[in-house]
Amino acid sequence: MTFSFKTLHTHGRARTGTLTTPHGTVYTPAMTIVATRGTVKAVTARDLLELGVQLVIANTYHLMLRPGAETVETLGGLHEMMAWPRTTFTDSGGFQVFSLGSSIRDGVGKVGSIFPDEDEESSRPAAPQGASLVKIDEDGVAFRSHIDGSPQRLGPESSLRIQAQLGADIVVAFDECTSPLDSYDYTKEAMERTHRWAVRSLDAFAKYGSGAQRIYGIVQGGAYEDLRVASAVTIGALPFWGCCIGGSLGKSKADMFDILDWTLPRLPPEKPRHLLGIGEIEDIFQSVARGIDTFDCIIPTRWARNGWLMLTPPAARAEYPDTPQPRCHLNILNAKHDTDRAPIDPHCTCFTCRNHSRGYLRHLFKTRELLAYTLATLHNVHYYVQLMAAIRAAIARGELAALYHAYTGRTLTVA
Amino acid sequence: MTFSFKTLHTHGRARTGTLTTPHGTVYTPAMTIVATRGTVKAVTARDLLELGVQLVIANTYHLMLRPGAETVETLGGLHEMMAWPRTTFTDSGGFQVFSLGSSIRDGVGKVGSIFPDEDEESSRPAAPQGASLVKIDEDGVAFRSHIDGSPQRLGPESSLRIQAQLGADIVVAFDECTSPLDSYDYTKEAMERTHRWAVRSLDAFAKYGSGAQRIYGIVQGGAYEDLRVASAVTIGALPFWGCCIGGSLGKSKADMFDILDWTLPRLPPEKPRHLLGIGEIEDIFQSVARGIDTFDCIIPTRWARNGWLMLTPPAARAEYPDTPQPRCHLNILNAKHDTDRAPIDPHCTCFTCRNHSRGYLRHLFKTRELLAYTLATLHNVHYYVQLMAAIRAAIARGELAALYHAYTGRTLTVA
Repeated sequence: MTFSFKTLHTHGRARTGTLTTPHGTVYTPAMTIVATRGTVKAVTARDLLELGVQLVIANTYHLMLRPGAETVETLGGLHEMMAWPRTTFTDSGGFQVFSLGSSIRDGVGKVGSIFPDEDEESSRPAAPQGASLVKIDEDGVAFRSHIDGSPQRLGPESSLRIQAQLGADIVVAFDECTSPLDSYDYTKEAMERTHRWAVRSLDAFAKYGSGAQRIYGIVQGGAYEDLRVASAVTIGALPFWGCCIGGSLGKSKADMFDILDWTLPRLPPEKPRHLLGIGEIEDIFQSVARGIDTFDCIIPTRWARNGWLMLTPPAARAEYPDTPQPRCHLNILNAKHDTDRAPIDPHCTCFTCRNHSRGYLRHLFKTRELLAYTLATLHNVHYYVQLMAAIRAAIARGELAALYHAYTGRTLTVA
Repeated sequence: MTFSFKTLHTHGRARTGTLTTPHGTVYTPAMTIVATRGTVKAVTARDLLELGVQLVIANTYHLMLRPGAETVETLGGLHEMMAWPRTTFTDSGGFQVFSLGSSIRDGVGKVGSIFPDEDEESSRPAAPQGASLVKIDEDGVAFRSHIDGSPQRLGPESSLRIQAQLGADIVVAFDECTSPLDSYDYTKEAMERTHRWAVRSLDAFAKYGSGAQRIYGIVQGGAYEDLRVASAVTIGALPFWGCCIGGSLGKSKADMFDILDWTLPRLPPEKPRHLLGIGEIEDIFQSVARGIDTFDCIIPTRWARNGWLMLTPPAARAEYPDTPQPRCHLNILNAKHDTDRAPIDPHCTCFTCRNHSRGYLRHLFKTRELLAYTLATLHNVHYYVQLMAAIRAAIARGELAALYHAYTGRTLTVA
């Protein structure tokens, strides 16, 4: 068997492990770098390998629209097309259908995963505003493309068929993604539909999936404790290879941590657990402490393209000495970096910090030079890769709280 | 002495040589890759080194406006700022003042050098249309910034002072760049002013230049034989370290080749000769055959970002079998590349061709993914580096005409 998931160390509910696929072994906890349209924006596959990136996540919704699942399949599937020899995920497209292929939920469906915005058209729906563009029935979802307004459908069968064509190592069941503003009754109804779709996703995966893929289920249930518990029990009992925590994670970080506390103890410990769309430093630590193995988030790459460049804590303290809580990034567009010959972070060993000054990066950002986005992405992805390695080491040594305190100045309970 | 220029082989008027600066030896003929604002768009310094790029050219006009010459100097100069350890040129800014800092010459001043367009604001002057924004007097040129309309001045002294601050290995005298539409009388007047500015550029270079720089003069004279001859004799006799051929190179390729035939025999053979802003395949061969040592041109990088990807001749013949004259590039946006699993060019050994298909590149271009511009630039720059190496080898073997025929299907006279 070419797939395996093994726990190496535990520390409270936190754990390290190995997630092995036909494309290599991922050391967990790990950050999945976002490659929405089959590319991590602004960097080459070689850059990613050299940075130590272990896995990337592409998106069913985006790739079905452009270039189309058949085209990706003809081009050899995601790995060959991207020249990416390591592990690949695809998300099912459920979240994007509800956030991008829609105008009825604008502004309320952004919790849980923020990577739909990775597509530059995301805030400009092609269809008239106010029209209800997403129609949900038992079969699936009808929606309009956010690119050209063309009518589209996606459901468990089509999502899994497309994911088989894309050919990622790990695929995900098709789900309905609710909003934090949805009522208890609607969230329950949607969750139950998601559970029925989970069974159909497993059937479709058995039909379409190559033997070289594995499927994760998605736990839904919004911010309602009994629903999250019910969903964790249901999804955990189905023969998925791993479990995602998806959907609305509430209205605050406290809500999100509660949801993880309700959910994770109900999931089978032998299965890997992926938290969709989360990536702030504090959230990573808090989620890892509760037993999450993998994440995906646009923060490393999106922040880079905004000019928000990550700082390790000693660098952050030197940079912002008067801030009681050290910042985790600087804004390179700040005028004070104009003539600064220092690197982003004197503690960083990435290509950008070894070679270029803040002043040069600011010039590249001010003039919108393409190299700005490449250099910034190299730095931020390097930061996340190193952060996750430090977290794995801290779990192995039983020192996760100390590492969290070093990064945030705050206290983490590991139990 | 850390600077030297030596001829290694001659073949008719064509020659190979070594141009040595404190930042390494350039084997000539060589293509200078354009780094207008202190970056070769979309690729890192490491990429350039690995591609075998020998020298890059940055621009005084662009850098004096953003980030400013003082800032570049504070950041350690061009080499340190760009992390570029090899040879660097700067153009004097003369051409850009007349083409970008102006609206009176719009559309007529684009011959000779096309890299001002490299700045994305070039076609959107900030000042009102129709206003005469460029005022020439004996002292220099007053113009308005194409970015914010602010009043600016540039002349021999300020250009050379700025070029000393930028710190390139090779700097260039400040000149007035005339248009092919200018009269004989005006072209003569401008040329004579350029000659007076050449002397002042030398004086300013002696005052401001570090010992680690050398200066090229610029031959002007438009498409008028007696003026080109007079300018070549005048500039050639001044104590410049090398000579550029600049300004209007006429209205056709035939005009340009005539201008080179008038000019090059009058230049001292021991000095290196740079042809400003030229880079089409045919033009490179024709210019090399007449004795040009170095070029700069935006074609490798600009065409890449347009999706025009270079094809070596056998690949071009296979791609376009019905074309009597093989094309030198394909347009990756062409729908026929949609599902093509082949690389751009099966004969190419660049990173892009070793790893990615035409179909994937088309997808990246269609979705405007930043990786598109990086992969295309890597390919096109690789093509030009390999082309120049092949030209050097052909000169050494006395086979330049055969190589030209292989690339273009046409005949080249080497005499």
